[in-house]
Amino acid sequence: MIQRPRGTRDFDPDEMDIRRYFETIMRHEARLFGFREIATPIFEHTELFTLRSGPNIVEEIYAFQDKGGRDIALRPELTAPAMRFFVNELSNRSRPLKMFYFGQCFRYERPQSGRFREFFQFGAELIGNPGPDSDAEIIALAASIMRRIGLKDYSIRIGHIGVLRNILAEADVDAETTPLILQRLDKKEYEEARQLMQNAKIDDETINSIIDITNTVGSINVLDKISGDAHEHLLGIFDILQAYGIDNVQIDLGVVRGLDYYTGVVFEIDAPVLGAEKQICGGGSYSLTELFGGEKTFSTGFGIGFDRTLLALEKEGYDAIVHSVDVYVLPIGNNTRHEAHRIAAQLRQAGISTDIDLMGRSMSKSMRYANGINAQHVVIVGEKELAQESIMLRDMDTGEQQLVKKKDIISILKNQ
Amino acid sequence: MIQRPRGTRDFDPDEMDIRRYFETIMRHEARLFGFREIATPIFEHTELFTLRSGPNIVEEIYAFQDKGGRDIALRPELTAPAMRFFVNELSNRSRPLKMFYFGQCFRYERPQSGRFREFFQFGAELIGNPGPDSDAEIIALAASIMRRIGLKDYSIRIGHIGVLRNILAEADVDAETTPLILQRLDKKEYEEARQLMQNAKIDDETINSIIDITNTVGSINVLDKISGDAHEHLLGIFDILQAYGIDNVQIDLGVVRGLDYYTGVVFEIDAPVLGAEKQICGGGSYSLTELFGGEKTFSTGFGIGFDRTLLALEKEGYDAIVHSVDVYVLPIGNNTRHEAHRIAAQLRQAGISTDIDLMGRSMSKSMRYANGINAQHVVIVGEKELAQESIMLRDMDTGEQQLVKKKDIISILKNQ
Repeated sequence: MIQRPRGTRDFDPDEMDIRRYFETIMRHEARLFGFREIATPIFEHTELFTLRSGPNIVEEIYAFQDKGGRDIALRPELTAPAMRFFVNELSNRSRPLKMFYFGQCFRYERPQSGRFREFFQFGAELIGNPGPDSDAEIIALAASIMRRIGLKDYSIRIGHIGVLRNILAEADVDAETTPLILQRLDKKEYEEARQLMQNAKIDDETINSIIDITNTVGSINVLDKISGDAHEHLLGIFDILQAYGIDNVQIDLGVVRGLDYYTGVVFEIDAPVLGAEKQICGGGSYSLTELFGGEKTFSTGFGIGFDRTLLALEKEGYDAIVHSVDVYVLPIGNNTRHEAHRIAAQLRQAGISTDIDLMGRSMSKSMRYANGINAQHVVIVGEKELAQESIMLRDMDTGEQQLVKKKDIISILKNQ
Repeated sequence: MIQRPRGTRDFDPDEMDIRRYFETIMRHEARLFGFREIATPIFEHTELFTLRSGPNIVEEIYAFQDKGGRDIALRPELTAPAMRFFVNELSNRSRPLKMFYFGQCFRYERPQSGRFREFFQFGAELIGNPGPDSDAEIIALAASIMRRIGLKDYSIRIGHIGVLRNILAEADVDAETTPLILQRLDKKEYEEARQLMQNAKIDDETINSIIDITNTVGSINVLDKISGDAHEHLLGIFDILQAYGIDNVQIDLGVVRGLDYYTGVVFEIDAPVLGAEKQICGGGSYSLTELFGGEKTFSTGFGIGFDRTLLALEKEGYDAIVHSVDVYVLPIGNNTRHEAHRIAAQLRQAGISTDIDLMGRSMSKSMRYANGINAQHVVIVGEKELAQESIMLRDMDTGEQQLVKKKDIISILKNQ
């Protein structure tokens, strides 16, 4: 047998019902917020991702050469492709530009529980102005998606990378060292961070205050520790989130997200039910367009890990999605097959989901199959009944059968 | 600027509206027929495709080695992955098993009009028994999809590869030569086909009758030329298609589809509006499971070229899909922003698609933006009106404005 590649998955019909159900809710919620869908290719020039994430990213992604010798890579995330698309073709559209997308991403890493080499991401990007309203709109959408899919327990942590960046800039830390320090702080590796800051000649008091800031977690009041633009900006966001009735949110100035291109607000959503790997969404405001050859543009956005979010829903337990078919058509004997197909055709045409015996099975085997596919009704097409322009309609819930004129089947089924 | 890879596409919001609209209709129609969705990975072990299509396929696909030295390939089609999935995990399910899928496929070839390196395919597979009912079910689904998406002009041509295979087998043509002859006949390259058949020591009379058969096109009556199982099988299919009211169908015994694994019925759907590249769907009954390490199983299916089908719809002209947003919320002055966001939150929560000014624009600029996104209503949030617990509701079609109590907005909008 040929196996599917390691770290990838096949999805059977029950799994796809669940996935499409939640994907549709996410898409619908984004539309309610005035976001519109875009799509980009599965692979891009590798350069797009090294520009965004540095050359080391090549080690972690599916990068290869095509037959024309071009370096291409399966996309590891969707923000860079969306912004490339924006720079190339959408930059003249009126602002704000509100886009969302859903699709596969790929990373080459050791497969482990809940992490796959092919995974799915739902994301949104807003290109507009840098006021708190834009960030709040993005965070409100992410939170509304979580609410609408029915996730019970999740929390939002919001930080502002500008706070630490400003302090580091004031301490004359250079552009190469800054991200290294931020990465350590993001991972709460304080000893390493302290060492790097000492090497960068930051005085001990400032170092202590930086580490103190990254440990600042709590309600809006903890913002008293900081001042200036970031303070005002975060207050503005909280004001709007409050208008949304979003209260499972706290300030966490330790959210740094380790990536160079974030510029201001950063946020993460956790689902505690997942334990250590609890993060299901991450985002913030960032600057990528000028890296891709466009003008500097304000953007803010998020990515939801679709697989991990589904896992959280599953662990919390949601109402099962039960597949069913409205009608199973069962011809009795060969002489009724043509008429049985005609009835199936009419039902399907009328929007009634219909299956029909294709195996020439006996009545009892067919009934078992109809049960297996969870058919709500069986239309039994027999010669005797056909002679009266009728069929036998069986309700699979109650087991009741009634003789029904062929011309009335659709109206009877539609009124149930 | 970084361009997207050659032969790939980005889709903007208007394009995505169209694509999702037609994709949803196809998916819905498949469900009405009792088919259920599955999904497989974007890439597979290359062997899957060489087993199906021969080693030369590697020249035409995105095949590469991953970091672990495995030969993998971006999928060029979806039947082989679906059957691999079936053999690995679904073979114990009750029959018939009716599956459909939609997704990207990839081929490395010179990009040309209407042909892309990344393209989209919608397909269905039915695993059941080899009677005409199964093939008819598949053809009826393909035709019903074309009808439901509103394609006006299309025609279905049905053949049976068993007819030619039987004659070639009776003439003692060996297993290596048979596909070569069939491929030539498929392309109507009669001189080359004749040469191959002469080399295979087929007598001239048989050769002429073979070529005559591949030119047999017409109504059901042309079946008089052939006899045996294929004759009965095709009659059975036509009988069922007639029950569906599908009449744009003809026999074409020249449909051979050039691929080794087809075993019986083969069919194609053309959209004449596309000219030379008119084929939008192809399918038939085939045998792949034993090649992938499973038991021999009857299967029949089709693939619809999604991009080319959309192109046909576009060339025929369909009713434009006009994007709109139900409401645009416009706060007047900074003091009303919090309340404006609260109203937007309530509207969105109630399922009313809502945009809100994030740019702090003037009234006239905001109205222009609201027009641009085709907002049906504007909710103007002013201090004076808020003092009366009200807002101004503007109908963007008529230009009429009315003062509305905040608590009544949702019910007024929902009743329009």
